Amino acid sequence: MKTVIIGGVAAGMSAATRLRRLDETREITVYERGAYVSFANCGLPYHVGGVIAERSSLLLQTPESLASRFALDVRVRHEVVAIDTATRTVTVRDIDAATESVETYDDLVIATGAAAAPGPSAGAVPTHTLRSVDDVDRVLEVLADAGPQPSVVVAGAGFIGLEAVENLVARGARVTLVTRGRQVLSPLDAEMAAPLLALLREHGVDVRLGSTIVGAEPGRVLLDDGGTVEAVLVVEASGVRPDRGLAEAAGLEVGPTGGIAVDARQRTSAPHVWAVGDGVEKRDHVDGEPALVTMAGLANRHGRAVADDIAGLEPAPARPALGTAVLGLFGATVAFVGWSERRLIADGRAHRVIHTHPASHATYYPGAQAMAMKLLVDPASDLILGAQIVGGDGVDKRIDVIAVAMAAGLTASALSQLELAYAPQYGSAKDPVNMIGYVAQNLAEGTTDAVQWHELPAALDAGAALVDVRTPAEFAAGAIPGAVNLPLDDLRARHGEIPDGPVIVHCQVGQRGHTAARLLTQLGYDVRNLDGGYRTWLAGREAMSSTLAEGEHA
Amino acid sequence: MKTVIIGGVAAGMSAATRLRRLDETREITVYERGAYVSFANCGLPYHVGGVIAERSSLLLQTPESLASRFALDVRVRHEVVAIDTATRTVTVRDIDAATESVETYDDLVIATGAAAAPGPSAGAVPTHTLRSVDDVDRVLEVLADAGPQPSVVVAGAGFIGLEAVENLVARGARVTLVTRGRQVLSPLDAEMAAPLLALLREHGVDVRLGSTIVGAEPGRVLLDDGGTVEAVLVVEASGVRPDRGLAEAAGLEVGPTGGIAVDARQRTSAPHVWAVGDGVEKRDHVDGEPALVTMAGLANRHGRAVADDIAGLEPAPARPALGTAVLGLFGATVAFVGWSERRLIADGRAHRVIHTHPASHATYYPGAQAMAMKLLVDPASDLILGAQIVGGDGVDKRIDVIAVAMAAGLTASALSQLELAYAPQYGSAKDPVNMIGYVAQNLAEGTTDAVQWHELPAALDAGAALVDVRTPAEFAAGAIPGAVNLPLDDLRARHGEIPDGPVIVHCQVGQRGHTAARLLTQLGYDVRNLDGGYRTWLAGREAMSSTLAEGEHA
Repeated sequence: MKTVIIGGVAAGMSAATRLRRLDETREITVYERGAYVSFANCGLPYHVGGVIAERSSLLLQTPESLASRFALDVRVRHEVVAIDTATRTVTVRDIDAATESVETYDDLVIATGAAAAPGPSAGAVPTHTLRSVDDVDRVLEVLADAGPQPSVVVAGAGFIGLEAVENLVARGARVTLVTRGRQVLSPLDAEMAAPLLALLREHGVDVRLGSTIVGAEPGRVLLDDGGTVEAVLVVEASGVRPDRGLAEAAGLEVGPTGGIAVDARQRTSAPHVWAVGDGVEKRDHVDGEPALVTMAGLANRHGRAVADDIAGLEPAPARPALGTAVLGLFGATVAFVGWSERRLIADGRAHRVIHTHPASHATYYPGAQAMAMKLLVDPASDLILGAQIVGGDGVDKRIDVIAVAMAAGLTASALSQLELAYAPQYGSAKDPVNMIGYVAQNLAEGTTDAVQWHELPAALDAGAALVDVRTPAEFAAGAIPGAVNLPLDDLRARHGEIPDGPVIVHCQVGQRGHTAARLLTQLGYDVRNLDGGYRTWLAGREAMSSTLAEGEHA
Repeated sequence: MKTVIIGGVAAGMSAATRLRRLDETREITVYERGAYVSFANCGLPYHVGGVIAERSSLLLQTPESLASRFALDVRVRHEVVAIDTATRTVTVRDIDAATESVETYDDLVIATGAAAAPGPSAGAVPTHTLRSVDDVDRVLEVLADAGPQPSVVVAGAGFIGLEAVENLVARGARVTLVTRGRQVLSPLDAEMAAPLLALLREHGVDVRLGSTIVGAEPGRVLLDDGGTVEAVLVVEASGVRPDRGLAEAAGLEVGPTGGIAVDARQRTSAPHVWAVGDGVEKRDHVDGEPALVTMAGLANRHGRAVADDIAGLEPAPARPALGTAVLGLFGATVAFVGWSERRLIADGRAHRVIHTHPASHATYYPGAQAMAMKLLVDPASDLILGAQIVGGDGVDKRIDVIAVAMAAGLTASALSQLELAYAPQYGSAKDPVNMIGYVAQNLAEGTTDAVQWHELPAALDAGAALVDVRTPAEFAAGAIPGAVNLPLDDLRARHGEIPDGPVIVHCQVGQRGHTAARLLTQLGYDVRNLDGGYRTWLAGREAMSSTLAEGEHA
């Protein structure tokens, strides 16, 4: 029996090594068109920045090491150019020898991954992606030739784009970040992304929102707004699309997202052909529809499942994808899972929104860091639809906890019941995840009613009074226009000062506002609490104003 | 309506503030026999060490702040000395005024917590617990009077004991840790606790395992082995027991564990009387039996649920307790959840054991820290029975992920499918939790068979061959007696050198051993992999030898 695997990085190599552990006798051949297999693709930006000092650290395995340990026949710089599913053969091109041969297979695994989407061409300026070790080599060559403080443009403000920015800054480059979007990191909602824009600018990055590269001259790129930006190098990170040409040409079914269509066992529409990794569609956790989710964890997991299926084990069917992700950026940590509010609105799905601003651990213990959390909840089922967290320490932990809760089908209210490990340097007796669960429970039970930052103007226009229950000192340091200050601890005595009609209360982060809302509700007021308090409102305002200041054309 | 709450720290104060948010009109009185309410009890050891520099940081609320914000009537230094459930009255002693009065209640909440178990009396040496702000004041007074490098004995090697040790060392004390146990931190299994013993000794702590204080003379305590230890102070941390005297005297039912018996809504055996916090029984997650689990998170959560019940909301019934816990010790992090192997064995419950030694994040990114993980699994259901993790960064995250999986009823194999956030500075594409799930799945499916470190001597006595598949350099640096070295990458060529009969393979941590076991199984050998590899074996040997070296009498 002979298995051919096309693509030798995450998904393909997971399939190959697992298959060998299950079947010692099978012939396993891996074709990789690049020069390297099993390299640390998520580490590539960090070698540019020198954080990963040694290039060799990126190379986790070699064809030789895979041969000696797993008896794999790994051919680098060999590209499969055609698949014939009828005859079960592949046509393989030896790139260096410039020869082609036809090879048979019993089972075929396509793990060709994704390729950079066609970005705006930079023409006269060297332009590279950060998808392979070769890419990094080329980027480092350009930087080495450029002298000190080279000007570099990064196109795209997603994960790879932002990681590239951080690492180029670390190398001393002057970086301009160009993105079509109204914000950086589009999976986040605007008010959650706003602090990242500020952070980028604090670190000297020239961020151009709502901009596109339309051309280049030697030493500069041209933007669609008529501006030019100096650049010795463009790092292209505008996104990826499934590398499906080979599969498509072989007649394999492609799904509505443009990814290769597979079932929960990663089987394509052709017998004896599996596909796995960034090139294939996943099933979305929230709506069950096909989705493109290009995460290394899924690629590895599904690669392993393919090996189980080929070897005749019952593979664990692929679970719907959550898209859990985390990013480090200039000391901050950003993480998300599931759907954003923007996506829920675009899809017309009912949702409830919760913002909190907890500390990473008990504030009486030194070193607690602030974080902003957002939870999206299905009002009918109380199931969690998504979450976003921006902060420092402990962000990755909380997103993982919420991701597990989502995968297990726990409700948002049930987050309050989770028994998380507590000591004052690690968390709080009521962990941030518990607390956001309590807020969810209060909303679900109708104990409290909330208004979102972007709903505030309409509510005030409709005549609601806005009561700021923070201390006078907090109020003096910055307040929402139109708010009157009635500190929480005075509210029992002074609530008569509140005019008749609907009331919106707010504090700094939402917690005192909740206490105030409960008090006023019981006193007969029609009251809502401004979700996330002054902080979320401020982030929302920053998001709006940065968009406007950019003169962006949405 | 009048609610009386006895005890004003975690559980009692959570009940009081939640009840006020739900009911503005109710009279709420809190009696606290100590001088402080709502203090940071988990922070007390860290004030001793100076990590929490300001004593005021420990005092989260005062009777005055609780009166102004929540209209609570909080009486400190007021002890409830009797409850009459028939007349719905409590007898309250004003400690300072030395007067008593009888107060009525409509609803009563008992949150008297736990008290230090009667430890070995130290007689002539000042002896204090670390349960209250007063305790900390007294400890600091003794230390202030003692001059530089005072000798201090800590009795008890649980959480509080170890936190006390760390903080006393930070203050410059010479610390002797005396514990009846064969190891420190008894919720851990011996091989998981072994590195902590080494860590304590590295930091100059004189650890006396299997020892008990039997008396004292001025300046020294006497141990049961006839030895004496210099001491100007004994910190008593031998454990706590429910403070149930008041409840018992009132005729409330006490459970088999010695805690006040309550139902899932925290109701005691008397109408209109709830009990909550460290003084009450919880229901254990693993066996559903009553258990004492003294965690701040549970106290807060159940306190809040009591308020819901009193206010007529449907409270979320208390979930069975997992006992998730985390400890920082000299830069290491130790965490666990559920049952230990020792407890499973003692209870006669079938279980499967898995040890792994992953890195905190991708090893190609600098700064990854090693951790040791242990997972206990029910072989019949594949449900998770417990976990233990010792390491540094990322330990708290992984225990929380496993705790959520346990609470949600996920299987051990399903850990492999969790979609956890990955970037190289935060985790691995196959996170440590995923990897231990894969091992669980391999064991559940019979893809691999394992032997535990403590089963190895018997297996070797029975004639098994022991094959070390690490490199010759690793073998030379330290090996298990009787092992022959056949490196994994040579195994296909040299397996003929293995003698007939059963074979045990091992590597450093278990992963190469698994690959070797798969290879040899397919070549027809009867093979098992040494779970956790050389590292777990070594930790187990250290655990055994430290016990023996102490001359401990078990």
